[in-house]
Amino acid sequence: MNTKKPQESLVIMNEFVMPNDTNMMHNLMGGRLLYWMDIAAAMSAQKHSNRLVVTASVDNVSFQQSIKLGDAVTIEAKVTRAFNKSMEVRLDVWTSNIPSGTRVKSNEAYYTFVAVDQEGKPVPVPEITPETADEQTIFDAALRRRQLRLILSGRMQPNDATELKALFMAAKHEA
Amino acid sequence: MNTKKPQESLVIMNEFVMPNDTNMMHNLMGGRLLYWMDIAAAMSAQKHSNRLVVTASVDNVSFQQSIKLGDAVTIEAKVTRAFNKSMEVRLDVWTSNIPSGTRVKSNEAYYTFVAVDQEGKPVPVPEITPETADEQTIFDAALRRRQLRLILSGRMQPNDATELKALFMAAKHEA
Amino acid sequence: MNTKKPQESLVIMNEFVMPNDTNMMHNLMGGRLLYWMDIAAAMSAQKHSNRLVVTASVDNVSFQQSIKLGDAVTIEAKVTRAFNKSMEVRLDVWTSNIPSGTRVKSNEAYYTFVAVDQEGKPVPVPEITPETADEQTIFDAALRRRQLRLILSGRMQPNDATELKALFMAAKHEA
Amino acid sequence: MNTKKPQESLVIMNEFVMPNDTNMMHNLMGGRLLYWMDIAAAMSAQKHSNRLVVTASVDNVSFQQSIKLGDAVTIEAKVTRAFNKSMEVRLDVWTSNIPSGTRVKSNEAYYTFVAVDQEGKPVPVPEITPETADEQTIFDAALRRRQLRLILSGRMQPNDATELKALFMAAKHEA
Amino acid sequence: MNTKKPQESLVIMNEFVMPNDTNMMHNLMGGRLLYWMDIAAAMSAQKHSNRLVVTASVDNVSFQQSIKLGDAVTIEAKVTRAFNKSMEVRLDVWTSNIPSGTRVKSNEAYYTFVAVDQEGKPVPVPEITPETADEQTIFDAALRRRQLRLILSGRMQPNDATELKALFMAAKHEA
Amino acid sequence: MNTKKPQESLVIMNEFVMPNDTNMMHNLMGGRLLYWMDIAAAMSAQKHSNRLVVTASVDNVSFQQSIKLGDAVTIEAKVTRAFNKSMEVRLDVWTSNIPSGTRVKSNEAYYTFVAVDQEGKPVPVPEITPETADEQTIFDAALRRRQLRLILSGRMQPNDATELKALFMAAKHEA
Repeated sequence: MNTKKPQESLVIMNEFVMPNDTNMMHNLMGGRLLYWMDIAAAMSAQKHSNRLVVTASVDNVSFQQSIKLGDAVTIEAKVTRAFNKSMEVRLDVWTSNIPSGTRVKSNEAYYTFVAVDQEGKPVPVPEITPETADEQTIFDAALRRRQLRLILSGRMQPNDATELKALFMAAKHEA
Repeated sequence: MNTKKPQESLVIMNEFVMPNDTNMMHNLMGGRLLYWMDIAAAMSAQKHSNRLVVTASVDNVSFQQSIKLGDAVTIEAKVTRAFNKSMEVRLDVWTSNIPSGTRVKSNEAYYTFVAVDQEGKPVPVPEITPETADEQTIFDAALRRRQLRLILSGRMQPNDATELKALFMAAKHEA
Repeated sequence: MNTKKPQESLVIMNEFVMPNDTNMMHNLMGGRLLYWMDIAAAMSAQKHSNRLVVTASVDNVSFQQSIKLGDAVTIEAKVTRAFNKSMEVRLDVWTSNIPSGTRVKSNEAYYTFVAVDQEGKPVPVPEITPETADEQTIFDAALRRRQLRLILSGRMQPNDATELKALFMAAKHEA
Repeated sequence: MNTKKPQESLVIMNEFVMPNDTNMMHNLMGGRLLYWMDIAAAMSAQKHSNRLVVTASVDNVSFQQSIKLGDAVTIEAKVTRAFNKSMEVRLDVWTSNIPSGTRVKSNEAYYTFVAVDQEGKPVPVPEITPETADEQTIFDAALRRRQLRLILSGRMQPNDATELKALFMAAKHEA
Repeated sequence: MNTKKPQESLVIMNEFVMPNDTNMMHNLMGGRLLYWMDIAAAMSAQKHSNRLVVTASVDNVSFQQSIKLGDAVTIEAKVTRAFNKSMEVRLDVWTSNIPSGTRVKSNEAYYTFVAVDQEGKPVPVPEITPETADEQTIFDAALRRRQLRLILSGRMQPNDATELKALFMAAKHEA
Repeated sequence: MNTKKPQESLVIMNEFVMPNDTNMMHNLMGGRLLYWMDIAAAMSAQKHSNRLVVTASVDNVSFQQSIKLGDAVTIEAKVTRAFNKSMEVRLDVWTSNIPSGTRVKSNEAYYTFVAVDQEGKPVPVPEITPETADEQTIFDAALRRRQLRLILSGRMQPNDATELKALFMAAKHEA
């Protein structure tokens, strides 16, 4: 099985914020954005694996920018690292009010997917070979994010999370 | 401002999984569940604060059970702790295939919301007074989850996350 | 086949009124509420019968309260009585504007469902044993509502509707 | 204010039954049909009154034919009688599987609407002058249906329902 | 195979313009109207052919009238001519603001459909026999529209479009 | 007012074909694709003009490839030429069944939009300066397409369509 580059799984999605996507303040509801990101990420994971995929998890997402009715939301999704039968997908979200020419980075998120065959049985996926320095950094940090996911879903003890602990230790030493 | 009990913000939501909610294996898409949970949680946060609310974040959610077309999804949302102008909402999700009598716990999640006035300006919310032992445990751990959110969104240094570090230290000592 | 209690089929559904649910005065359209009630009632009938179910009828529903954009609609559904292969479900609807703390009873309705097997053939359902005085009153009156349904759908002659006639006779005698 | 003919308010609506309109047996859900009928009836009531309208009630509707995925549903709506500020609309529903050339009458229903001005205040509507014998029969029986609605919504005592009682009395005398 | 009249395939569709159908100026989006017209036209093509049908093309559509939120859109679809296994459907669209009593012709369009069997294989359809002078004119001009479609989709050379060229030649001679 | 390059208005949209987008043969309905293309094209026209835009027309679109449930549809939109207050947008549509690794060009289309201010009044837009040979060819042919639109919408006589006539004349001379 060949390795693949992150760029090969790039998916770009653009959506206008419509009335039914918004709350009483005419802002995009967080849940609608999570839904769009899941679809963009699934498409990216399909492109990397050439398989049907199912969502395995979403990492912490924070919503610090309000997105308004009529804004255009641009989602870029790219596989960052593969772990045997699962893949991590990074999402970068920009929000534009095109008539007024504004464009801001509104969100970043990581979703993970499992590749499956027609019966829904997990199957292996190609590995990722990062090309750029940025991709390498994100690739390296994927181990840490994975440990955090495993701890948070109760499948790893904090003490076994060597990558993650290093983060706190390093921070301690710097202090 | 009075304190309130978690039970006062309880919201129960039931949804049938319909064709357009599913992927090619006829399973509920993760993004659709995240959307439903956001709505249930927003309703719960409104009940606690008697204010309009906006989604501030969703914590890591893992999807370990597939949910099938025609299943009934039951979401229970309850505010667990308030932090001045924001609230943490816990969601418990059960999936039932009612005709075959099955019912399984499929997901747990935490969303946070900020209460706002009509102009969207954040406003204070009542504090939470836990009633049961479970509610107290979840209330206590809310500090740790909050530190993790702040670190993950770049608004706190790992070294300052005293509650969270204790988790790793404790784990270390137990080891 | 065991009998069941109304409470065992209780289903609670909560929905926010979104822009596409409303008319030009920003009020919830009656038809959307009828749609939501059908789903809540079907879920309740499934819980009672542990079967797939199909809508057989909806009784007269009146809409005396306007429900506004952004309001929360709470629907409670419970099977009130079983008639061999069909079930009557009662729906109580409350409307809340949570930020302003209002909550009013907006509607009551009765839907009936037929339980079916995988081929769509009607199958028997458990009987209902009312527990509370209220449930008993609603159980007793179910016969009258059923006769009205049969008359209105042309399957019973008014003269054979002994339960229903009693209503008019009683009224006459009281006069 | 001029009187109008039922025909002037005729509205025809055609819809294909799509996947998300159906239940697990691929039949149209009753609630979706109630939703479509509400829209067709509202349009008809608007045509009669040249006003915005709000749904006041739906009479008993029974679902005796299953309607399948891919079928075409034809709804005809026509105002049958006006009562000062409200109107009764009759709906006739046909279901066609066009490729196999079948077409059956699947439902009949009556919805009532109140005409309102821009502030939502009820306003008078033109009276109806029936043209055909059928329209006259439906016009006459509208009084009886109205009394039933008033009784069922608790706004009339059975003993005052002179039109409706006649139905039972007549039936009694015939017996 | 019998011939059929255009009137036999007449389909009338009525839709209210809802919030999610509109752009930031509260006007119906062109794409939503194209979607509705496709459904009305498909239903008409089914009625003519008594077959499943698939959209083969849409001709140039221009949008010269803005259609507002809350307006009623009436679409009339009728098969104008058959070409062995395909059919041309003409759509006439009227827009009404019923409360203010306005009604304007907003669009005309031609869609073509291919009739198919259950496996999706094209099958012959009945021919059209126009009844009125208008239907005859539209029937005759269908050849010209068909040549334009074939040229625009690269399946005919302009020089072979004898019907279409006549249009330009005639115009030239008149000049 | 500066001129702009086609590339500056590039918009990429990706959509999965979901159950409710499909007909009885599980193929994407043509009308749904026309709706998606309208949204992608509007976004592109907004990017070019930095204005709100309204759809003015869609040119002939032919559907020669069936697109299946679960396929990914990629739409690329780019402004090709501006005409004072209106813009032509070209759309290229590719369809991928990602798990099986197929990707085909399924459609090409041209939509036109008018730029408007907040009151809906048309306003001038920047001109287009093509960069590549392809863009120049499409830019040049835009005049011909525009004349065809004007003729088909009854706003130009065929005899005045000098660009378009040349097409038939040229063809004639070559013959």
